[in-house]
This record gives sequence, C-alpha cells and structure tokens, in this order.
Amino acid sequence: MKPTLMSRAERAQLAMMIEVAAYPKPGNVDRCHDYENTRLEHFLASVIFARPALEEAERFSAGIGRVIRHAVELTNRHAGGNTHFGAFVLLIPLVMGDGIAGASRLVRSTDTSDAIEFYKAFAETEVRVLPGDELDIRDPAVYDELRARGMTLYDVMVHSAPRDMVAREWTNGFVLTCRGSKILMELGSGRDAVTGMFLRLLASEPDTFIAKKHGMKVAERTMCEAQEVLDGTRDLADFDRACIAGGINPGSIADITIAAIYTALGEGWDWEG
Amino acid sequence: MKPTLMSRAERAQLAMMIEVAAYPKPGNVDRCHDYENTRLEHFLASVIFARPALEEAERFSAGIGRVIRHAVELTNRHAGGNTHFGAFVLLIPLVMGDGIAGASRLVRSTDTSDAIEFYKAFAETEVRVLPGDELDIRDPAVYDELRARGMTLYDVMVHSAPRDMVAREWTNGFVLTCRGSKILMELGSGRDAVTGMFLRLLASEPDTFIAKKHGMKVAERTMCEAQEVLDGTRDLADFDRACIAGGINPGSIADITIAAIYTALGEGWDWEG
Repeated sequence: MKPTLMSRAERAQLAMMIEVAAYPKPGNVDRCHDYENTRLEHFLASVIFARPALEEAERFSAGIGRVIRHAVELTNRHAGGNTHFGAFVLLIPLVMGDGIAGASRLVRSTDTSDAIEFYKAFAETEVRVLPGDELDIRDPAVYDELRARGMTLYDVMVHSAPRDMVAREWTNGFVLTCRGSKILMELGSGRDAVTGMFLRLLASEPDTFIAKKHGMKVAERTMCEAQEVLDGTRDLADFDRACIAGGINPGSIADITIAAIYTALGEGWDWEG
Repeated sequence: MKPTLMSRAERAQLAMMIEVAAYPKPGNVDRCHDYENTRLEHFLASVIFARPALEEAERFSAGIGRVIRHAVELTNRHAGGNTHFGAFVLLIPLVMGDGIAGASRLVRSTDTSDAIEFYKAFAETEVRVLPGDELDIRDPAVYDELRARGMTLYDVMVHSAPRDMVAREWTNGFVLTCRGSKILMELGSGRDAVTGMFLRLLASEPDTFIAKKHGMKVAERTMCEAQEVLDGTRDLADFDRACIAGGINPGSIADITIAAIYTALGEGWDWEG
C-alpha cells in the first residue's frame, strides 16, 4: 500500500506491529514466542494504546520529551512492562520531523524541559539502567542536576550514547535506522525481509540492551552468532532457542528495526508482499 | 486492567487484537496460521486502521450505517481482503450504545439511509453472498429497491437473519455475544479462556460463514466436531489442521467472539491473566 494512504501515526503503528509479528527474531517476542510476563498481546496492546501520542507527534502539538512521556504513560496501562520505550525515542522524532533528515535537526533543538520529561518517562518504566550512572533516574535530585547543568535531551543522549545504541541514533544521524531501511528495500517486500534485516543489524553491532542485562561479552557473542547464521554455519532455529533459553533478547536492535520499518514504509517498501 | 482505563474505541481494538492473537482457533487466522492472501498482519493492520471509525462510534458523530461503511473503507487500505466486516456490524452498535442493552435499542432505530450505507460498504468488500438473494448487492437497482420498500438497516438484518448469525445478533438482542461474554467470565482470565469460548460457541450453532462457503452440512459437521473436542473424543490440533486444510474457517463465530470479548472487557474480564 502507498505511504500516502496512511497518516504518519498509523505508519508508526504499522511498523511496531510488523516488527513484533515477524518471526523468528532470535531472543525476542514474536508470533511464536512470549516471555512469561511480556507477551505478544502486550506488544500489540502498546501498538493500540500509543496512537494519541503518535498523533501528537504528527501534529507537533508538544515537545519531543513530553510526547515520549505521553507514549510511555499510555502504554503503561497494561501489565506487560516496558515494550517500546526505545522505539518511541526513535519513532517520535521521526514522525515529528517526517523522516531522518528532519528528525536529525529536531533532536538537536531539544531543551532542558525535554530532558526532564524524558527522565520522568524513564522513571515510569522499568527500563534497565547501569549501576553508578551519575544521572540516576531513581534519584529525585536528577531533575535539579539537569537544570543546574542546563542539559538538553540531546545532551542526555550524548551522555548515554557510548553505552546505548538507541541514544547513538540521535547523535549520529540515525545511522542504523537508515542502514536497516536500506536493507529492507534491498531484501524486497514482506515479512522475511524484516527478519533478514533484523539478523543483519544484530550481526553488525553488539546490542546494548543485551550488554546492560548480561554484559558486553554476551552482547558480542550474540553478534557473532547472528553472523554465523548469515554465513550458514549456525542454525537459525537453534540460535533462537538458545537466546530464548538464556533470556538474551536484543531489545535495542528491535527498537531500531521498528524505526527502520517506519522509514522504509515512507519510501514505499511493501509490507504485504 | 480496568475498563475505565480505556476508551470504548480502544476496548474494541483490544477485542479485535485479542481474538486474532488467540490460538489455536480451528480453521481461522491466528498466531500460528495465515491464509495465503490474508495473514495475521492484515488482521492487525485492520485493528490499527479501524480506529477513526470506532472513535466516531464512541462520539456518536454519524449513523450506524455510515460508521460501518467508514470502518470498511479504512480497513480496505490493505490488500488482505475482508477481515472484520461482521465484527464491525456487531462492534459499532455495541460501542455506540455502550453495551448490549443500548445496542439492542439502537439497531431498531436505524433507517433507510443506514441500509443504503451498509449496502455500499458491502459492495466495497468481497463478503460472500448467497446466489439468488432478492437483495443482491451487486445489482445497482438494490438502492432503489431499499428506498421503494422503505427498508431500514434493521429490516435488512431481519431479512438476512435466517442465513446469517451476525445479522441474527441484531434481531435477537445479541444472544451469542452475551453467551460468549458469560463463558469468558466463567472460564477466567487470559488467552486460554478466549479459545475455550470460541470452541464452545462453535459447538453451539452452525457457523453461517462456513454454510455460505461450503453448505450447511459442512457447517453442521464442524459444529459437531467442535463438540467432540470439548468432549475429549477429538484432538484439537488435528481438528485445527483438518479445518485449515479444507479452507473451513468459522468467520462468523470469530466476529461474535470479538463482540463477546468487547462485552466481557467492559465487565472487567482480565485479558492479561
């Protein structure tokens, strides 16, 4: 279907839906896999519930930080925990800026109030943080600290970028989002292109969500194993089973996959093929 | 989650999502089964795209026929064919009337313009019609006929009720919707209750979608086989496989299942359990 047949909010929802339905995505929730407390239905409920925030992004009726916080609040109404925090961090500037070029400009224009809203959103999720971070979201003094330093949301992402590949997308011009979108266009239409793109991104950089949860060595090993699947020396279903069994879920690559699908849909990529 | 945490439009979307994600639902699209031209993703795209029409229903900003037609137009933007026509025929009065009692009153107040909008919606889908129906949607003269007879949309449903269990819900006070909702509340929370309810409805009346496609004998046999699954004399997975292989998809029971989930959610049924 033509991108002009959809609003940008709908295109963002479609990207979220297509990502979670695609299978197999090693280690992540998909049609064939639930985690005990976070199931396919929770991801799809988030797709439904996020709509008003994505429409705000399309109308540009609030700042980036406020809209991200609204999306988090809306999707916190189910009990499945954080499903799309990182995806919203990418999708909302992409929807507001109508693509990567606009989003890259927009994120640099954020201010301290965006940073404060973002930290409040963060505090309302169970997103994993590194111990010892000087900007600990669980410390109420963090808001004074942000104000005292005059940190914008972009500054926060610069601060997080070394350890968080979603934050890096903000600071490097959405490099992996762009790469993922190009891979999708190359691989052609339909669901298999999504899993192919996911695997290629997974093989290209260590997933920082895995790194925060299990350490960098596990993230790097997972990256190498994804490359082995692409090389044909490792079985995809076996890799998937091993990831699931170890609780190794590449959540940040999934977030970037959603942003890449959103971008490709805007360029006419055919999800139905 | 409490029903008050959702708008009625969101509750309708959630019901559509929960129905299609539940598995196994013998013969129908679910997490584990696609049909070649209609896949899980098409059903979920319809869930996303239907939102504005469901919001119109909640705001009561147009008549029932107009809103049904809008829902059909919105969801026709994907290439997966008709996914939710029957579900909209049930959900839209349920959302407008805020439940079965209100919907039962509302459907009796429809007029000829509702009937005309409904026939136009019908003409825009590939919904199966019986050959030889005196009100053939493919005949442009049907609109003059409706006007000449002064037929309301309720009259159209009375006309269709003998051969269409979705139409019967309009004329009998949503009997199966109510029964399905009660079964859900009895079976308890979560996904298994949905498949349990689906099977019980399937075992209680011949699915008229199957009857239109394969004849009443096949519909009756499917009903008996569903009862055998409930009795433990037939294997569920085997029944599912046989239905899929034969293209026997109980589409009308699926529509009523969605309406029953919507109703149960409004009464506090816990989908996350």
